[in-house]
Amino acid sequence: MTASTSTTRDYVPSGPFAGRFGPAIALKSRETGRLTELGPFSIDPETFGPLEVAYDFGPVTRKDIEAGPASLWRYAPLLPVPRTAEERPADLSPGWTRLLKSENLARRLNLKNLWIKDDRDNPTHSFKDRVVATALAAAKTLGYTTLSCASTGNLANAVAAASARAGIDSVVFIPENLEQGKILTSAAYGTKLIAIKGNYDDVNRLCSEIADDRDDYGFVNVNLRAYYAEGSKTLGYEIAEQLGWRLPDQVVIPVASGSLLTKVDKAFQELIALGLVEAKPYRIFGAQATGCSPVAEAFDAGWDVAKPVRPDTIAKSLAIGNPADAPFVLDIVRRTGGAVAAVSDAEIVAGIRLLAETEGVFAETAGGVTVANLVKLLDDGRLDPDAETVVINTGDGLKTLDAIADHVGPAATIDPDLRIFRQTIAAL
Amino acid sequence: MTASTSTTRDYVPSGPFAGRFGPAIALKSRETGRLTELGPFSIDPETFGPLEVAYDFGPVTRKDIEAGPASLWRYAPLLPVPRTAEERPADLSPGWTRLLKSENLARRLNLKNLWIKDDRDNPTHSFKDRVVATALAAAKTLGYTTLSCASTGNLANAVAAASARAGIDSVVFIPENLEQGKILTSAAYGTKLIAIKGNYDDVNRLCSEIADDRDDYGFVNVNLRAYYAEGSKTLGYEIAEQLGWRLPDQVVIPVASGSLLTKVDKAFQELIALGLVEAKPYRIFGAQATGCSPVAEAFDAGWDVAKPVRPDTIAKSLAIGNPADAPFVLDIVRRTGGAVAAVSDAEIVAGIRLLAETEGVFAETAGGVTVANLVKLLDDGRLDPDAETVVINTGDGLKTLDAIADHVGPAATIDPDLRIFRQTIAAL
Ligand SMILES: Cc1ncc(COP(=O)(O)O)c(C=O)c1O
Ligand SMILES: Cc1ncc(COP(=O)(O)O)c(C=O)c1O
Repeated sequence: MTASTSTTRDYVPSGPFAGRFGPAIALKSRETGRLTELGPFSIDPETFGPLEVAYDFGPVTRKDIEAGPASLWRYAPLLPVPRTAEERPADLSPGWTRLLKSENLARRLNLKNLWIKDDRDNPTHSFKDRVVATALAAAKTLGYTTLSCASTGNLANAVAAASARAGIDSVVFIPENLEQGKILTSAAYGTKLIAIKGNYDDVNRLCSEIADDRDDYGFVNVNLRAYYAEGSKTLGYEIAEQLGWRLPDQVVIPVASGSLLTKVDKAFQELIALGLVEAKPYRIFGAQATGCSPVAEAFDAGWDVAKPVRPDTIAKSLAIGNPADAPFVLDIVRRTGGAVAAVSDAEIVAGIRLLAETEGVFAETAGGVTVANLVKLLDDGRLDPDAETVVINTGDGLKTLDAIADHVGPAATIDPDLRIFRQTIAAL
Repeated sequence: MTASTSTTRDYVPSGPFAGRFGPAIALKSRETGRLTELGPFSIDPETFGPLEVAYDFGPVTRKDIEAGPASLWRYAPLLPVPRTAEERPADLSPGWTRLLKSENLARRLNLKNLWIKDDRDNPTHSFKDRVVATALAAAKTLGYTTLSCASTGNLANAVAAASARAGIDSVVFIPENLEQGKILTSAAYGTKLIAIKGNYDDVNRLCSEIADDRDDYGFVNVNLRAYYAEGSKTLGYEIAEQLGWRLPDQVVIPVASGSLLTKVDKAFQELIALGLVEAKPYRIFGAQATGCSPVAEAFDAGWDVAKPVRPDTIAKSLAIGNPADAPFVLDIVRRTGGAVAAVSDAEIVAGIRLLAETEGVFAETAGGVTVANLVKLLDDGRLDPDAETVVINTGDGLKTLDAIADHVGPAATIDPDLRIFRQTIAAL
């Protein structure tokens, strides 16, 4: 199967970085669609809105992709990266994670056809290894000497690990109140870890100032954000390829800044445009925690933009009170017939346990958010129980043990004695 | 390439389980070599020594294997499991983990050619998902209704997760002093987790008694141990296949009970016998912690068996004071020209940090043991720095955060203020 997209057909690439980003030919204003040259830019100077990467893919076939490596680089022809591995920084081979068929959870929820995309399989056990992969490649091409980020935890892990592997300096910024699992892990990789007295939105603001202040820091989700965000497309590509080059009917995706959700949709659209999957309707659902649900609130209220909130939830990786991509998320879920919903902290814990007990997949709080929203959206009749559904688990339970520490533990603690065990097990 | 092994050529399979374990045709006494029928046995009634699985493989080709799934089941023709996925319990698709080429660590250690086999990629982030996969398949075939184990932590995680996924009850036994990460994770999967006041050897003794006491419990590493141990062969197969169907010159492997090390050797021997790789000399090295180094001690002393010790080390997953497979480990390392060495707790922490900082791979204490022994064996001149070397990381740093908690952390904690950041970073 061969095809090519055509939206950028008449654009002639220019500037010092033309041809340096694989199939990417320009940056595009997400508001006006205007194309500008590739470079270290993430903001449209006209609208102050975000820029995203625009491509001229040329022909890409299923065969080409299937012949690629068992990592997200099988999709290099669809990403803003140099074509060959030799031109990219050394990495930990992120992506190409398991798509697990669910029988037990599906039965429990009366769902006909459920899949779990388990992104714990990534090198630092969250989907953030994907976005760091494309951002790091861009950092190298653009000449940054230090990789950096503002993070709710998982991104910090991914940036620190990828930098160690690639042999580039890193400085990573987090809110000081993150989980131990995320703090210690980042530090173990030898990054310069800077804890900030404040929440993620404070961290993000500081990082924007630093990005303006110095030209050696490539912040993956600030000045490299256009390239970073494209990495999330690979989650969408993988779901389609692993289903046998087919789109699902419904996808449930956690939302913090909203970037991941918008890129799964972009991936599906590109696959259709390239003729790699058949065009079909699909519905995209966003999942938030009630302690930080600006996008769910805007969805319910019918707003086009989100009103910033002050986060207070155990789902710290999703605790972004002022989500950059909220307008795009709202547009996508409305256009596809989806929704954005939110669940309480108690429901998040129940979601973590439900997924672990039924499928043996131990998710972090963000995964609990997603599974709990799956339950809720089914209960509310917004998800179709007969339609093929994919739920994305983006992170690992080992990073958020505090969330379950008061809820699970040994059933009994006993002496090593057969008689005592007999009594104990009889009583359990 | 096609070939077949012939050691068991004249044996005629018998008993109710003949033909139910794929290419396995018998159980074999590891001491006398005598073959007996397949079944729920792990001990040779004549010698009271261990039994292992014996096969009649028939022809197996590289092509057959390469056409298989991206999991350890690509080696189903070499394992004691039913041939088709439908006959096996549902699982989480363990195995087929990354083999990473090391540049940074190799350079640091002056090693010419180093690979890291990173078994964190498994569903519960340790190599124990491999052994549980073959043990669970055997439990199903043999009719056990509860899956169980005596564990130093990782096995508990793997049994609990695999049982949840397969929809079988589980009861899991651990020493009470394990790391929080391992205790909570096991409990999250909904297993009946029994903490024992004692060390692993006490837990193991109790489990042997329980296995004798009730016939519904399949203990993966007690009464199912013969089948369980075979799962570790897949680590050896993968290393060879991922090197391009070639054996390395040297492998460094952590040793607790010693089972893993013996099975990597068995895998290499089988691949040679089947003609899937070229025969060549290779050397196998065992890695222990000085706080629990009965096998290293026996190696140094020239003994054929290990003298039990009382473990006291931060490498809790390796804290087996009375290792069942010690004689076989000693035999293999001597036969291949390897060694068994041991490192201190401080060296273990340094090993964890070295691997994380150079390669972006965050290992648990067992991985720290292995990397620290790599360093030590090189320093001692026992490893050849010019030979192709594989180091196996069997577990995940997120499960043993306490080991590094006093050693790493944020470089600074500051207000979200550009001026303060400038001062801070200048001083770091
Ligand atoms: C585990 C996890 N899931 C989901 C998200 C949401 O990502 P996005 O900001 O792209 O919406 C994050 C963001 O940090 C995360 O860490
Ligand atoms: C992480 C890890 N590595 C290595 C081992 C050693 O395994 P074996 O008992 O087969 O020697 C264990 C055993 O528990 C383990 O948990």
